Amino acid sequence: MSNKPSIPKGTRDFSPIEMARRNYIFDTIKNVYKKYGFQQIETPAMENLSTLIGTGGDESDKLIFKILNSGDYLKKADKENLIAQNSSLTTKSIAEKALRYDLTVPFARYVVQNQNDITFPFRRFQIQPVWRADRPQKGRYREFYQCDADIIGSDSLLSEVDLIKIIDDVFTELFQGKLNYTVSINNRKILQGIVESVGESNNFEAIVVAIDKYDKIGSEGVKKEIEFLGIESENIEKLELLLLSKDLIVLGNELNPTNDIKRNQEILEGLSEYLELSINGKKGIEELEFVFEKLEQLGIKTANVKLDLTLARGLGYYTGTIIEVKIDNFPSITGGGRYDDLTGKFGLKDVSGVGISFGADRIYDVLLDNNLYPEFKGDSTQVLFINFGETEQDYCLPLLFQLREANINSEIYPSAAKMKKQMTFANNKGIKYVVLVGSDEMESGKLTVKDMETGEQENLTIEELINMIK
Amino acid sequence: MSNKPSIPKGTRDFSPIEMARRNYIFDTIKNVYKKYGFQQIETPAMENLSTLIGTGGDESDKLIFKILNSGDYLKKADKENLIAQNSSLTTKSIAEKALRYDLTVPFARYVVQNQNDITFPFRRFQIQPVWRADRPQKGRYREFYQCDADIIGSDSLLSEVDLIKIIDDVFTELFQGKLNYTVSINNRKILQGIVESVGESNNFEAIVVAIDKYDKIGSEGVKKEIEFLGIESENIEKLELLLLSKDLIVLGNELNPTNDIKRNQEILEGLSEYLELSINGKKGIEELEFVFEKLEQLGIKTANVKLDLTLARGLGYYTGTIIEVKIDNFPSITGGGRYDDLTGKFGLKDVSGVGISFGADRIYDVLLDNNLYPEFKGDSTQVLFINFGETEQDYCLPLLFQLREANINSEIYPSAAKMKKQMTFANNKGIKYVVLVGSDEMESGKLTVKDMETGEQENLTIEELINMIK
Repeated sequence: MSNKPSIPKGTRDFSPIEMARRNYIFDTIKNVYKKYGFQQIETPAMENLSTLIGTGGDESDKLIFKILNSGDYLKKADKENLIAQNSSLTTKSIAEKALRYDLTVPFARYVVQNQNDITFPFRRFQIQPVWRADRPQKGRYREFYQCDADIIGSDSLLSEVDLIKIIDDVFTELFQGKLNYTVSINNRKILQGIVESVGESNNFEAIVVAIDKYDKIGSEGVKKEIEFLGIESENIEKLELLLLSKDLIVLGNELNPTNDIKRNQEILEGLSEYLELSINGKKGIEELEFVFEKLEQLGIKTANVKLDLTLARGLGYYTGTIIEVKIDNFPSITGGGRYDDLTGKFGLKDVSGVGISFGADRIYDVLLDNNLYPEFKGDSTQVLFINFGETEQDYCLPLLFQLREANINSEIYPSAAKMKKQMTFANNKGIKYVVLVGSDEMESGKLTVKDMETGEQENLTIEELINMIK
Repeated sequence: MSNKPSIPKGTRDFSPIEMARRNYIFDTIKNVYKKYGFQQIETPAMENLSTLIGTGGDESDKLIFKILNSGDYLKKADKENLIAQNSSLTTKSIAEKALRYDLTVPFARYVVQNQNDITFPFRRFQIQPVWRADRPQKGRYREFYQCDADIIGSDSLLSEVDLIKIIDDVFTELFQGKLNYTVSINNRKILQGIVESVGESNNFEAIVVAIDKYDKIGSEGVKKEIEFLGIESENIEKLELLLLSKDLIVLGNELNPTNDIKRNQEILEGLSEYLELSINGKKGIEELEFVFEKLEQLGIKTANVKLDLTLARGLGYYTGTIIEVKIDNFPSITGGGRYDDLTGKFGLKDVSGVGISFGADRIYDVLLDNNLYPEFKGDSTQVLFINFGETEQDYCLPLLFQLREANINSEIYPSAAKMKKQMTFANNKGIKYVVLVGSDEMESGKLTVKDMETGEQENLTIEELINMIK
């Protein structure tokens, strides 16, 4: 093989500068999670296939990467299916393991498996890659990182408040107040209530699927989809009134302190009256009220927090609060919600939890497009000793190690290459200081130090150089 | 499915305390790598199968986890092989991708693919999991982390010096001078020279395989294996003299400053005379001399660095210096060496490099067995507000957020559960301070703060609490 090598489509290598940016995002999220009492766990890349399938529906199952059994795997395969070349019936017999599809299912499995060692309510975070056999396209990869935080084993709505404050903290730090972003909140129980109160409970799932397309097809599109379900026009009008009204409540923040608390309360009261006959609906309003009230009291830094009744977040496992973060004209960068039966599949019933997931790859692009990364100079080499030959090299080596002992990232060019080559190396690697040592410097003990950014040169002892950098 | 869930054999979950320990190891290694000018990269978990196979021999190929193609994968499979249930001939037609087996092959692929964007010599480090379909046993996993550093694009022996100094720095920090460990060094060219000088070049590989078993079967065992190859007894005696002598040179360190530089030089001179007729052998001695000389000059902190002519490190791709780190009675915890043609497979010839790999999982066990982990209290929640009910909760929430703004990891118990339950929660999570707020505290503004380690209670304002913790 001597063709230029490549990597599987939808996957990526990360170069040093890309790693610095990614670590910056991960570290920011990690530190905020820790501030809120979350603890990190990791789970293996591979899970038993039986753990993963049947959790997100047939479409999701197709997107799971399966791992071929080791050894003589075909021996155990069903011969009839093999001969018929029936892929879907063969898979289970030749692939017992698969790559995780998200971090939520492995977490549910972890909780059940380790339930006796876990202190509930359990605040865990997890930052790891996941794999999906999706069609790759701009911004969609087959290997990508999720940054999840969940609080499991408590139905307290303080958890929701914490998660929304976490979102506010993370994006306040990453966006530095320079980007407008919206945290939309809704509650699946309110959606249920609305559908119940117009007598269309039987059509709940289909209606949610339609509403979920709001951002793609607009209010008229959603209306048409709902008409198509054969729902009476009178009921559609009732639904329309509520479902197609966005931005019902908007909380102010430190940048736009435009809270109209009275108006917000009136809206919730109005909704509450409307849903009076639905237990689910009233419960949903109550939950929402609590969350908004606490957020108003505690204050928001930079997020535009709003109630959006058109937010549905698919057919997933959500049963209460749902949350989604968006920047204008960009897909969701963070999402989450409350679930009541995540661990039921693994035999542990009635455990309520709520979680969010930051999409690191989309956040990466947003920060890059908007030039919001800090400089990472200190992360790479700070000082390079130019190598003029054996004598000078021997003189420089102990000095180099003095810098390293002082925790200054430094190196010596490994051979006495041409000066130009060594300077180009320093430039390409973004090294700030270059140290030149010839016979004059060895005699005086004063090193010639060149600042590669300003071009200025100074004569310094090694101690002076260390002090200058520190 | 309601059986208790499990994970694939040979894989592991990592709990919060295990994560704290692992991050401690990774961070220590990472910071030392950075101090020496190394830059981080990451590559995808999956590579094209064609990238991975044929790099480590047939046995290695069998240990590669293959990923089943998506969709109707059997359609493209060779029907004859399917019907014959011939696994090995079918694999390539149904699995184009596989999980990486180590970090070295993906790195070689990365270098070739990105050669125009890389500034050589390239110092890269990479800390990621790898997967091997090995038989799991104590200390051997199917998913484990490697922590690799390589310098590629330079044949300077200063790279070797840096890597050995890195090993010394990392284990000085992790072992705190409390564990004895040995860095064995050899050079494949010396091994070649020795085999040449007894006229057994044709048997080089077989002899290396025999020597490689030294630690398992001892000198007598190695001798028998070599006899078994049909080598003349005269030559075996010559080989024995050199190959079976361990600890030929031992460098002193700060703990045991017992350097006998003169004796070391004599040994190398003796070896050099013995290998006078072998170009490879003389080159190997020269290389070794340079490395030992520089290490002597720069000094070693805690490692026992020695020349071990019985070190072979398998049949791999090594062509020069080889390095291995061991603790008494424990398998190798770090290893590496120089290679001259790692990228040749991908079409880039004559690129020399040298690298090491820390085995994080073995180091984890060593630190645990020897009680060498620091306390990680600050990493988890530091302060818990006990929840006495709605009024107290509302009073505590803004205080909680004041702590978080001061970067103190803190939380409030999410419901007014029984006092005992909340205190047990604090205990289990290892939380140091518990804050109790009742009507007295709300009136005075002085919080009751209990130190869970000493049992002592103090009355503090929130500002005083923040100052105490900082």
